[in-house]
Amino acid sequence: MPKILNRRSFIKASALTGITLATSVESFSKSISTISVGNKSILKEVIRIGIIGAGLRGRSHIELLLNRKDCELVAVADPDPQAIEASNKMCREKGKSLPKQYSNGPLDYKNMLDKEKLDAVIIASPWEWHTEQAIACMRNKIFTGVEVAGAFSLDECWELVNAYEETGTHLFFLENVCYRRDVMAVLQMVRQGLFGDLIHLEGGYQHDLRNVKFNDGKQPYGGGVEFGEKGLSEARWRTKNSLHRDGDLYPTHGVGPCMNWLDINRGNRFTSLVSMSTKSKGLHEYIVKEGGEKHPNAELEWKLGDVVTTLIQTSGGEKVLLSLDTNLPRPYSLGFRVQGTKGIWMDVNKSLVLEGLTKAHEWTPAEEWLQKYDHPLWKNMEAKASGAGHGGMDYFLINAFVESAKRNEVPPIDVYDAATMMAITPLSEQSVSSGSMPVIFPDFTRGKWMNKKRDFGMSDKY
Amino acid sequence: MPKILNRRSFIKASALTGITLATSVESFSKSISTISVGNKSILKEVIRIGIIGAGLRGRSHIELLLNRKDCELVAVADPDPQAIEASNKMCREKGKSLPKQYSNGPLDYKNMLDKEKLDAVIIASPWEWHTEQAIACMRNKIFTGVEVAGAFSLDECWELVNAYEETGTHLFFLENVCYRRDVMAVLQMVRQGLFGDLIHLEGGYQHDLRNVKFNDGKQPYGGGVEFGEKGLSEARWRTKNSLHRDGDLYPTHGVGPCMNWLDINRGNRFTSLVSMSTKSKGLHEYIVKEGGEKHPNAELEWKLGDVVTTLIQTSGGEKVLLSLDTNLPRPYSLGFRVQGTKGIWMDVNKSLVLEGLTKAHEWTPAEEWLQKYDHPLWKNMEAKASGAGHGGMDYFLINAFVESAKRNEVPPIDVYDAATMMAITPLSEQSVSSGSMPVIFPDFTRGKWMNKKRDFGMSDKY
Repeated sequence: MPKILNRRSFIKASALTGITLATSVESFSKSISTISVGNKSILKEVIRIGIIGAGLRGRSHIELLLNRKDCELVAVADPDPQAIEASNKMCREKGKSLPKQYSNGPLDYKNMLDKEKLDAVIIASPWEWHTEQAIACMRNKIFTGVEVAGAFSLDECWELVNAYEETGTHLFFLENVCYRRDVMAVLQMVRQGLFGDLIHLEGGYQHDLRNVKFNDGKQPYGGGVEFGEKGLSEARWRTKNSLHRDGDLYPTHGVGPCMNWLDINRGNRFTSLVSMSTKSKGLHEYIVKEGGEKHPNAELEWKLGDVVTTLIQTSGGEKVLLSLDTNLPRPYSLGFRVQGTKGIWMDVNKSLVLEGLTKAHEWTPAEEWLQKYDHPLWKNMEAKASGAGHGGMDYFLINAFVESAKRNEVPPIDVYDAATMMAITPLSEQSVSSGSMPVIFPDFTRGKWMNKKRDFGMSDKY
Repeated sequence: MPKILNRRSFIKASALTGITLATSVESFSKSISTISVGNKSILKEVIRIGIIGAGLRGRSHIELLLNRKDCELVAVADPDPQAIEASNKMCREKGKSLPKQYSNGPLDYKNMLDKEKLDAVIIASPWEWHTEQAIACMRNKIFTGVEVAGAFSLDECWELVNAYEETGTHLFFLENVCYRRDVMAVLQMVRQGLFGDLIHLEGGYQHDLRNVKFNDGKQPYGGGVEFGEKGLSEARWRTKNSLHRDGDLYPTHGVGPCMNWLDINRGNRFTSLVSMSTKSKGLHEYIVKEGGEKHPNAELEWKLGDVVTTLIQTSGGEKVLLSLDTNLPRPYSLGFRVQGTKGIWMDVNKSLVLEGLTKAHEWTPAEEWLQKYDHPLWKNMEAKASGAGHGGMDYFLINAFVESAKRNEVPPIDVYDAATMMAITPLSEQSVSSGSMPVIFPDFTRGKWMNKKRDFGMSDKY
């Protein structure tokens, strides 16, 4: 397994071996961009995969894995036996042998990591488990895929980075929207200069989650206003975040694509952030409407403002506007906007302007342009992706995860990207709680962003 | 002319007359909301109007005034004789007698104010003249209409408020977008509760002004990359603001409607603001593209970031997101969004969701709802407005101005609203220049906002 030197161990190594610092730095810088090529020789044909968390999201990944010949689903860890049984049922239906099950409490996943000689793990547990489980995987030298979430503190983000740098084990941050078809077509357009120099980007998570945050404890969506112990699925663990926290609690789907468009951590980085929230009215009104004024949950005071807006500045002088809007009646929209000196695209009206190419001062439907710049990945694999979750993008996500794991190479969305995206949440909470004070964005790469090269969307294979 | 007591003179008067403070405060509080009713008896049938600034904007107001029987265009002040001649031509074409002209330098407007016994003045001069001219009008006890702009300093805003409170002379802030048909229909919907409790609003000035900021000195729009002395019309004075300033320089069209939706200065107020800007690339690229790399203006460093985003918090717990986006190729869009606990409307996709009334989780075209809630003003006067500037809204603006002036009553968009909107510019500049620090929003009403009642859009006449 390749070992990436971190800054400290590198300096120590240099001192010991007596290499001159200047030369070493140069060759080390080169290795950052070529390391993935160097490792392709160790490709494994079939990898042994374990799952931590077999809820709705974990099982959607299992379904994709069961369709593949290069993956063996070896084990599943989940403290909920019903979740394990549901995944077993999927295996039986596909005629696959059943994975070993680890459901003896929430820490049984550690036994799985110790015993199963896994090549890769996918973590799809509740948010508060992600970091410790990911670190445990990395310390066990298992290629780690972790579902998206915001962090609870900045320390978590650093711990992930440090675990990677100490173990040399890769972490793939499973941000699926980066693989959305229009998002990837726009990435092609950005890279080919159609929008000119980028200036202002927008994204967000604008999704009426009221019937996800609350249900009747029997079905995952709606039917009641219960959550926590009395709720089912996401309502069981996600909703408490809305009760106790105010800030952008779910930034990754909006910011992930923006990071690729802007080459964040690859020649560009986020430097500071401000967030502003609003009053919290939506969840209370929903509880009263669906459960009545006398329902005990009608007495709760919800902390999460109904619409949280975050502005992020970059070292390149661009800005990203993020929205979190999950408590109000509205259509699903990630609200993307890509705007540069030569054009603008917005997804809410599916339109664009490209200077000299479309009519000035007028919206032109984007569809024709998105087709023309369709990413080679989508062109090649549209048929395979068809039917996979979230409009097909989950196919590309899991495909990239598996192919990266087979080669044990730097993932296109790596641990630094994970730390960057996850950090938005505690930074946003800090800004909101201090009356929208600006907050400095940590450089999780410790300067390596100036030399790192693009990883995402560079191939037509994965 | 009615004299409104300001806080200081009121306390002084109370002390002199021996009225008990409690009673006086009560009756004074009442008088704030009823003063306009009390003054209706002094309605003038025809008013004598003067114009300061007869450029393109001033002349569009002159055209509307010349169509009315209740206005006599008495005098026009503009240091540019060509502007005066152009307005004279309009008078001749309408068969009206020519107004007196005051074009002996930029201060000749003062002679007009002294000599012409005007009932009302409209100020449509370059931004940097607005405040001193408005104060001069108020000190001459002339009902003052002033075109929109952002202020250059907070002091200006206070000076306008103080001039009003000292003279009792009304100021009408001529923010025309408040009268846009969809904006007023949405106001009706807001007031009737269709959006529930408001949470998050957006507006802005998103308008590719590159061929307004630059021209060939012979025509107002484009044809060259000159500005300042060598430019014509707005390029002559407006463009230097983009060279020297960074912040939301033109907030009123976006924020005016939001203020009405949120009852700002009437039970609600703006409490703080943050702004974030971007690099400035658009104007330089435009100069190079249209004028070549060797044009002297290609060497200039433009200070105005290409997209400036401002977040404003309210005492009611809502938030307003404002955009300034005038340096890049894009379609005109004020980008309105009104979102509350029961629904959302956006103008960029002309769609809405109203809980229980339209299909959930889906955009519904807004048109039918905007027609249903068409404001009585528009219903009654659509025919008269047809053909007036900016889709008819300028008719309603000037009609409200003239009718308010005839009655000498509190304008629907008054001096406190002017100060509030204009203040966004220096507050935004302060926030941008300090790395997006939050800035406290002054209370220009000195507490009167808690008692003031709604003025805007309350009548079907004006």
